This record gives sequence, C-alpha cells and structure tokens, in this order.
Amino acid sequence: MENIVVIGGVAAGLSAASRARKLAPRAQITVLERGAQAAYSACGLPYYLARRVPSLEALRVHPADWFRERRQLDLRLGCEAVEIEPARRRVLARSAQGARWINYDRLVIATGTRSRWEPETKLRNVFAANTWDQVQTLEAALQTGALQRIAVVGGGYIGLETAEALAQRGLHVALVHAHEQVLRGFDPDLVADLPGRLAALGIELHLGTRVEGLEGAQGGRVLGLQSASEMIACDAVINCGGLQPEVTLAQAAGIALGRTGAIAVDERQQTSLPGVFAAGDCAETRQQVTGAAAWVPLGAPANKQGRIAGANAVNAPAARFPGVLATLAVPLAGQEYGRTGLSLEQARTAGFDAAVEEVTGSSKAGYLDAQPVTVRIVYQPSTGRLLGAHFRGAPGTVAGRLDTAAAALTARMSLEQVEHLDLVYSPDIAPLYEALLIAAHNARKT
Amino acid sequence: MENIVVIGGVAAGLSAASRARKLAPRAQITVLERGAQAAYSACGLPYYLARRVPSLEALRVHPADWFRERRQLDLRLGCEAVEIEPARRRVLARSAQGARWINYDRLVIATGTRSRWEPETKLRNVFAANTWDQVQTLEAALQTGALQRIAVVGGGYIGLETAEALAQRGLHVALVHAHEQVLRGFDPDLVADLPGRLAALGIELHLGTRVEGLEGAQGGRVLGLQSASEMIACDAVINCGGLQPEVTLAQAAGIALGRTGAIAVDERQQTSLPGVFAAGDCAETRQQVTGAAAWVPLGAPANKQGRIAGANAVNAPAARFPGVLATLAVPLAGQEYGRTGLSLEQARTAGFDAAVEEVTGSSKAGYLDAQPVTVRIVYQPSTGRLLGAHFRGAPGTVAGRLDTAAAALTARMSLEQVEHLDLVYSPDIAPLYEALLIAAHNARKT
Repeated sequence: MENIVVIGGVAAGLSAASRARKLAPRAQITVLERGAQAAYSACGLPYYLARRVPSLEALRVHPADWFRERRQLDLRLGCEAVEIEPARRRVLARSAQGARWINYDRLVIATGTRSRWEPETKLRNVFAANTWDQVQTLEAALQTGALQRIAVVGGGYIGLETAEALAQRGLHVALVHAHEQVLRGFDPDLVADLPGRLAALGIELHLGTRVEGLEGAQGGRVLGLQSASEMIACDAVINCGGLQPEVTLAQAAGIALGRTGAIAVDERQQTSLPGVFAAGDCAETRQQVTGAAAWVPLGAPANKQGRIAGANAVNAPAARFPGVLATLAVPLAGQEYGRTGLSLEQARTAGFDAAVEEVTGSSKAGYLDAQPVTVRIVYQPSTGRLLGAHFRGAPGTVAGRLDTAAAALTARMSLEQVEHLDLVYSPDIAPLYEALLIAAHNARKT
Repeated sequence: MENIVVIGGVAAGLSAASRARKLAPRAQITVLERGAQAAYSACGLPYYLARRVPSLEALRVHPADWFRERRQLDLRLGCEAVEIEPARRRVLARSAQGARWINYDRLVIATGTRSRWEPETKLRNVFAANTWDQVQTLEAALQTGALQRIAVVGGGYIGLETAEALAQRGLHVALVHAHEQVLRGFDPDLVADLPGRLAALGIELHLGTRVEGLEGAQGGRVLGLQSASEMIACDAVINCGGLQPEVTLAQAAGIALGRTGAIAVDERQQTSLPGVFAAGDCAETRQQVTGAAAWVPLGAPANKQGRIAGANAVNAPAARFPGVLATLAVPLAGQEYGRTGLSLEQARTAGFDAAVEEVTGSSKAGYLDAQPVTVRIVYQPSTGRLLGAHFRGAPGTVAGRLDTAAAALTARMSLEQVEHLDLVYSPDIAPLYEALLIAAHNARKT
C-alpha cells in the first residue's frame, strides 16, 4: 500500500492530499499540520477582521473530521514536521505527544511562507495576521478594547486589507511601508490613487519608512515603531511585512532551492529528490510570459500546484503545472485593483523592450449608470505582443476583464488579436468597446 | 480626391465613415441614411421602453451635426439609396427633395436588417421596435394609455427585452413565439428556466405558436393575433420577429450573396464587386470556431466590420476582420444569459462529435454573499477542444466569464489549457475555482 506524507494542511497541502485520495483510494495518506486548524481560507482572514464574516469558522472549507472521515486522511493538527530524512524516507513529527518518525513512500512539502521581518522582541501586542491562529490571537486582543492605535507594517495586499478592515472598525491605523509604492508588482501609475483613498479612510500613511525597531518597556507592552526618521506611537503592531518561502525543513534535507529562494520543482512539482514534491507558497514556479523562475505566493496557484503534486505523488498519469501569470486582484478603499502577466518594470528586467498604454473605458453603456474602468497594458512594440495588463475599477468591474487578459496572455496573443477579440456587448452588461480592446488598438498605432 | 459613399448611418455605416475619415482626412465621404436619426445605440432601445433612460436622445453617440462638423461627413438623413449602378459607380439617392445620382470611387453598404415577417395589414397599432423611428412611434402610442394588452411577437432577445420592459410598466404582455425555446442559439438547458421567470413577471407566454394572421376591423384597430389553435386578443402588436439581412439593393446591383443569404464578403469586407464593401447586419461573416459562413447580426461585430470596411474603402493598409464567435449576452428577468462559440446543436450540425458539461459554481467566495453562476461548455471529446460556452447568473456575473471563454475560443484552447488558466482568485472578487475551470476539468474526466 502506498504511503504518502504531506507536510502542511492549509491550501496546497490539503489539495494534494485530497487529490491523492481521489486518485488512489487505498493509499495511506498522512497530513501533518503544525497549526490548530486545517483547510480554511487564509485569504478570507481580513474579512473576519473586517467583520464581513461572523466567525473564523465560516472560513473553513470543511471541518478536520470531514477530511478524516470522508477523505480518509490521517490529518494531524498541532503536529509539526521538524526533520526530513530522505535516505530513510521518513519525517520526524513533533506534537504534544512527543516526537516520532513517520515513514513515507512519497512526500509532499507544503510548508508555505514565513515573514521576512520577524521582530525579535518580548514585547506584548505584537501580532501577525497570516494564519487562523494569528488572527484569532489578534482578534482576542482587539476585543479587550485596550488597543486603539494600531501600526500595520507592510503595504502589500494583506497589510492594506488588514489596515482597511481595522480602520473601518473605528481604530486608528498607521500603515508603515518600506517602499514609496504600495502594492508593488502592480503598475505604479495604476495604484497611484491608492494612498489618497486610504488616507480618506483615516489611515495614517508612512510610506518609504523602514522599521528599525520596536519601542516599549522591557517585557512590557509595545509603545511604538522606530524608523530612521521618526517614532510612530502605537498600542499594537501587526506584522504584515513581506513574506518568504518557508524552506528550512527542505533545505536541511538537502533539497535544492531555486534562484528565487523557494524550493525548485519541475512541471510535475517534483523537487531535486525523487519522490519528494513541493507545492504552494514554499515552491518556485514559472512566469508563463517569460518562462523564467518566479516565486508567486497566491492561493489559486497554491491549490492547483497541490492537486498536481498530489496526483504525481500517487503515480497517477503525469499531471503538469504550466506556471503562473501572477494574476491577482484586491478590493481596497472602494476600488478593485488587478494585475496579470508582467508590469513594465518586470518586462524590462526580463529583457523585453516594453511600453505601456493606458485607457479608461466604461463598465457598460454610458447611458446606464456605467462606471469607469482603467486598464494599463504592457506590451512589446517590436513584436506587438501583449505582456501584461493592470486594471482599476469599481467593485465588480475588474475580475472578468482581468481573466480575459489572462486568457490572452496564456495564448500569447498579439495586440492585433486582442483588438479583434469578439467580446460581449450588451448595454446593461458590457460596453461596445472594452478598454482592453481600445488599449490594444491605440498601442498598435503608436 | 477620393469619393466614398456609405449607405446606412447607424452602427456599421457610421463606423465605416468615421474610420475612413480618420485615415483619409481629405476624402469626400457621403453617408446616406433613410431614417431621421444617425448614430444611436439601437441595442439601447429596450432601455428607453423600460424607462431606464430618460429619452431617445440619451441613446445618441453624437448629434448628426457633430459628424458633419467634427468628422466632415456629408451625412444625409431621410435619404434612401434606391439603386446602385456599379458599372458607372453611382448610387441613386431619394429624399424629400427628389432623387439624384451620387458618384463614388468606393462604396460601403451597411443596410442592416429587415423583419422576416412583415404583416401585410392596414390595421392600426401594429408596431416594430428595431429602430429609433419605430420605437418613437410605439412610445407615442403607448403614451395615450389606450393600449393595455400588448402582443409581442418573437422570443429572441429583442422580443424578450421588449416584453419585459412593457410588463414592468404595468402593461399586460403576451409573448408569442413560433418555437418552444426562447433565445434560440443559446443552450436549451441553460435557458430552460426563462419561461418560468418571464411568467413570474406577469408575461403570458405562447410558445410554439406561429402567427397565422392579424384580426381587426378592416382599416381599423388590431384586435388580436390568430394562430393555428387560438386567437390572442390584444390592443397592439409589436413585431420583434426574426430578422433577415437587408440585401435588396445589393442583390439588384448583382452583388453576390453568401449561402446564409447575407452579402458575401472577404476578410477585407469587400463584396464580389471590387471597390464595393459591405459591413454589419447585411453582411455575412465567419464563425471562428468552424471557419464556416455565418450570419450574426450583433452590434459589436457590426461596428468592428464597419471600421474594417472604412479603412479598406480609403485604401489604408489592409485591415482584416477575423470573424465572430457570436458572443452575446442579455439581461432578462433578474438573470443574465450569455453565449459564445457553438451550441451543442450548432457543433453537431457543423460535424463535430460534441458533448456538454454543466457546472454551477460561485461568483466569489461562498462566505461573502456569493451568487451561483452556471456554465455549460460544449466540447469535442475526441480532441479535447473547447467549442462553446453558455452562462447564466445574477446581474454582473456573466460578462467577464463570457469574455474569458471567448478569448479561450479565439485561441482554440483545449480543455486542459482552460483548466489550467491562471484566473484571479480573491474572496470578494472571484472564487478559488471558476465554474469554467471546473467544467473543463470534469469534461476531461468523462
């Protein structure tokens, strides 16, 4: 009987285990999750802080016992893999009951991420918001009412969503971000309106501000963040700073990392060790537009990679992951921001002669309460190839447009092909000419 | 100096004239429009009847004088082309001022459609709703308050939109449709819920009911519709029956028609006569999925074809129209219905071994007031190729999904490629797995 061990039980890990079970009904499948929860929507955590969902329970896909009973997975919570011994094909798992070795025939590593910045502090009221357990701890502290000034560190989408959620709850929020541009990886001009919108929500912005240290009484409460130029007073710090792949375990086992620092895998999600797979935020992937290695920690690719790894772990007909476009959207301050493919900077770094064309179009016919939709496409003038697309618009206007651009990028369409796409027109549903098509047309002329 | 004549001044005609002007600033460009209005959104007419727009004026793109002054077009309203004499390159135009010949170097024919069923009657209160003039006449009659029972003939999207608009105004509406399925061309199962939804709006449905004649006092008011089995009493009839290409003029000039009965054109929109182009609803095109001739009278392709014809009419660098997917969506009875590519019936008629896979997915994460979205994909099991996609969902959920499928069809994607599309996931914006991707996955397994 095949014996599969999966390290990690949230997005990629449980996808891998579930897929393996589907394809190998009789395999022994063990999932080791160090946290107290499995199979929840990590991307939904900001909506709990924003009180858009009534409880963390609402973010569960299924309870742990469902996976145990219905999927026949040996799902162990509070159980951390602390060592992989590839030569003997075994993993050392530590839980409250102690440590023991678990043998495997094939292993899937889905260890996710950790923060790049880990404040070394004994100060109280320093939180993170990446996992169920972290958010549960944070929420409990917020419930006391003692924390009124919150410093959120990090201007990526998790930091911004967290900051907005807390501002909407009436808390005073200071957003501290090391770079001048929030949402890096998005086109800078597309998100240029965002600081103003966040400020209008009452969020105090400290952009281009690197945190040098925390202030507070030794062992007591945190009192502020220290940057090179200022001290930002606060009752609590939420670390939403940059993430890095959690590769400690893999690295110690001699598994090769890629040049991004994440675990190198082939299209089958197999690592440098035969029979050992990696998936999700700990694994490297490829950007489809360039074919180059990329590290893109996002929920959807993590799930898909997990399924691929799970299928290959039980030797099902080879499943291959085609890479990502880094398609991403985030609702912030009453707008939606989306991106897919390359930004101008990414395109130039990748060696493309690249240019940008911006068009503000309409969500539908102008005579029917339409909303503006802005697109900035990145393209290669010398070949006419589309390289990326970035969108901004009112709620509900971005996802479909982004997905259409993503499909065009996957197909490596030229601007001419994009211009001639037969997209829907219906006055109350979509405009006669989509901004994407107009942008493709204009870019061809320039 | 080039001398361009365009016959027809709504969608394709004015697109052709405007594009020609852009590319040939010094050309003489004459547009002949038999109606009293030019350049308005014909697709918006039902929204005027529904009182969603305050006036017909709101449906104008620009007033006629804007085209005359800003675009330097010799735009003649109330001026009907009644004969083309290709040998002498001239058109006979008739207006209130009489008839005269107009010479051309190149001609664009954009004569649109006419109803397949033209009731031969002198009865009063028999209307149509395809043009500004027709809707103006209809609205004036409705304003009298004398018309309370309205029979709408035709269960295509114009008939259904018109019926819903009038029902929402509190009028009693009987919808009379020759076929059992409304919205033919859509997947039958996808629109199976529609009769029930229309009935719930108070619309009286007579499906599978062919109109044999009109009842009424000779020269007096219409009193009812006669079918084979029943008499449907009414105060007014609105003919939204099937359309056919308006090709009388072209045919009389010896221009070849295609097998669909519309004017045959090449990729440049040129007809069988050199220097004579046709565009929009009077012209034939190709279905991209099959490559076969198709007649698809829709606003967006009409506009695009007009631009192609206009560019080629002034000998700009060759512009080519790549054909259509027949992408179409319509909002009805609180839902949106969309289709692109082939239906199962169309696929089988075209010689494909074809099958359908249905999935009901979610508009976004289930824990955030998501709406169901249903997709039915048509595919070829032997090759795994996607052939068409049909969607049903709540307002705002269909357009982007439809466009994504359209881009996939243009790229001739396989189900495997569709399954691996890197579409956006963001809990409040889009679900982890789109229904389209799940359908592609399921179809591959079966």
